[in-house]
Amino acid sequence: MRARLALALLAFSLSLGSAPARADQEPAALGGAPAPMATHWITLGTMGGPIPSAERSQPANLLLRGPAAFLVDCGDGAVERLTGAHVRLEQVRGVVLSHLHFDHTAGLAAVLGLRFQTNVTQPLTIYGPPGTKALVAGLLAAMEPAVEAGYGLPGARTILPGDSVSVVELSDGATFRLGDIAVTARQNTHYSFQPGSAADARFKSLAFRFEAPGRTIVYTGDTGPSPAVEELAKGADLLVSEMIDVARTLANVQANTPNASADALTGIEEHLARHHLTPEQVGHLAQRAGVRALVVTHVVAPRASAGDRLGYLGRISRIYPGPTVIANDLDQF
Amino acid sequence: MRARLALALLAFSLSLGSAPARADQEPAALGGAPAPMATHWITLGTMGGPIPSAERSQPANLLLRGPAAFLVDCGDGAVERLTGAHVRLEQVRGVVLSHLHFDHTAGLAAVLGLRFQTNVTQPLTIYGPPGTKALVAGLLAAMEPAVEAGYGLPGARTILPGDSVSVVELSDGATFRLGDIAVTARQNTHYSFQPGSAADARFKSLAFRFEAPGRTIVYTGDTGPSPAVEELAKGADLLVSEMIDVARTLANVQANTPNASADALTGIEEHLARHHLTPEQVGHLAQRAGVRALVVTHVVAPRASAGDRLGYLGRISRIYPGPTVIANDLDQF
Repeated sequence: MRARLALALLAFSLSLGSAPARADQEPAALGGAPAPMATHWITLGTMGGPIPSAERSQPANLLLRGPAAFLVDCGDGAVERLTGAHVRLEQVRGVVLSHLHFDHTAGLAAVLGLRFQTNVTQPLTIYGPPGTKALVAGLLAAMEPAVEAGYGLPGARTILPGDSVSVVELSDGATFRLGDIAVTARQNTHYSFQPGSAADARFKSLAFRFEAPGRTIVYTGDTGPSPAVEELAKGADLLVSEMIDVARTLANVQANTPNASADALTGIEEHLARHHLTPEQVGHLAQRAGVRALVVTHVVAPRASAGDRLGYLGRISRIYPGPTVIANDLDQF
Repeated sequence: MRARLALALLAFSLSLGSAPARADQEPAALGGAPAPMATHWITLGTMGGPIPSAERSQPANLLLRGPAAFLVDCGDGAVERLTGAHVRLEQVRGVVLSHLHFDHTAGLAAVLGLRFQTNVTQPLTIYGPPGTKALVAGLLAAMEPAVEAGYGLPGARTILPGDSVSVVELSDGATFRLGDIAVTARQNTHYSFQPGSAADARFKSLAFRFEAPGRTIVYTGDTGPSPAVEELAKGADLLVSEMIDVARTLANVQANTPNASADALTGIEEHLARHHLTPEQVGHLAQRAGVRALVVTHVVAPRASAGDRLGYLGRISRIYPGPTVIANDLDQF
């Protein structure tokens, strides 16, 4: 027990950095009065698609509201990117999952595991589509042997990680709160199960509108063109959207798999076009929703250069003239 | 089904890079005869301890034998580091876990999840201490909703990820093979449960000796001083060892938690000294085992500078005079 307490202190001390600007500290306003809480969005991981990249981490984002942090999707590498954003695990009060593809969820094992190993027992709520309860239950079950062993010290008290974790499953139109942020979830078109079918009821991919005092941010998740997402994004201060380069992706397939049949290529194109957004479709979404600014992330454009990215911005800007950036990992908006 | 096949092709094509030197390609010998298979060790993640770092990834390594790859520990970020090492998931034939602390295992969710999403169905064997079966069973259970939903295409065939994954639990002295590499596992001293106790039987932390044709590599895992590890490392070509800087870590604790009691600080020191290796203890291990070269990884030395690392090398070299490096992420030996 003494050793466990000691480790908690150790963990806390190791997580303190000396960087001048830190996401867990609000700047003091002139005159010493506390500044109003700021709302920021950090793109922790900006890679799109399941194939890992050495340069861009898997899809993950952080919604910051004062000292509180909320992960929005949580791909592999998210806890390391959190450190890069100067945010400690104990600041993370919630996780919001857009859908259960593993590039968006595989980092959750590390969040739960390292919470346990650094003695973070503050409540964590995980919001996500149907299936999120099974996901979290499996991860907690996977942790059992290591939880019981602890740090290998006889007689140490066991803290059960499940005691501080709860799950809320969301359907189309669900609303919930993250502190003083009002959140609305809408089903998008990343899956194309028949509306009303059993599969459609069980498997949902979601977009989110986060309404904080003074700032509204909308996150598309992974989606194809969707009137529901357009409606959700109406008038947002910031739209954070996915994007794909279908032509580049298809050219890659043709170059590297020369034996692929024409049928297979047609199938790929159909899938990519239905479940993701081209630059033009991103532009239409932002323009129709009338958002004030656009951040493009989840960029499915393997080995795109800065010049290629400029090309995407050109295609978007012909439709949506507002300020637009293609995010890099750890960009803060 | 067609779309799923197409996605498999897509995944394959996206994972092909254009880097000149790739771990999955053996250089041709002079005269066109195939070169003998090389054996390499890549330190994918060199951070020590559970606190994530923005600069060093969580503990993970790769043992390469020709085109076959074996993960040795698998912390968060491992799949991204795999891409950095130009190794595709389908090359990974096995995972070897030294112990179940989450900084060493939390990346396994991404390995299993992204195997599924990129249609890698090649058999994968996961070796680890008792508890590894429960770990993998939990991770596979966590995957079920996303596996069933697939890519959201009605009628697509479901590939069950568990069908291609098997687990082998290891105890002290266990031997097994990874292709033509003979592996021996020995229990180390990262846990200090009473020998012969029920906890000691259930929870083991392991070190490994990998004997490939022409090259023997020994990996300590996390350990304190251990005669068993010294014996295991005898005459190895390469010893890959953990290391901690106790004084630096304690100074950090004292600076950042000024209210910590003397008792708590004594407890910390006792724990760190028993379950990890100081630079001097690393030197003694390498010297007594008579290894030909030493790679230090899992460096528990928060914010150590290059000069600090030179200091560690000095402390090691006073005891072990052989070639020694403190590894960085993606170093290949």
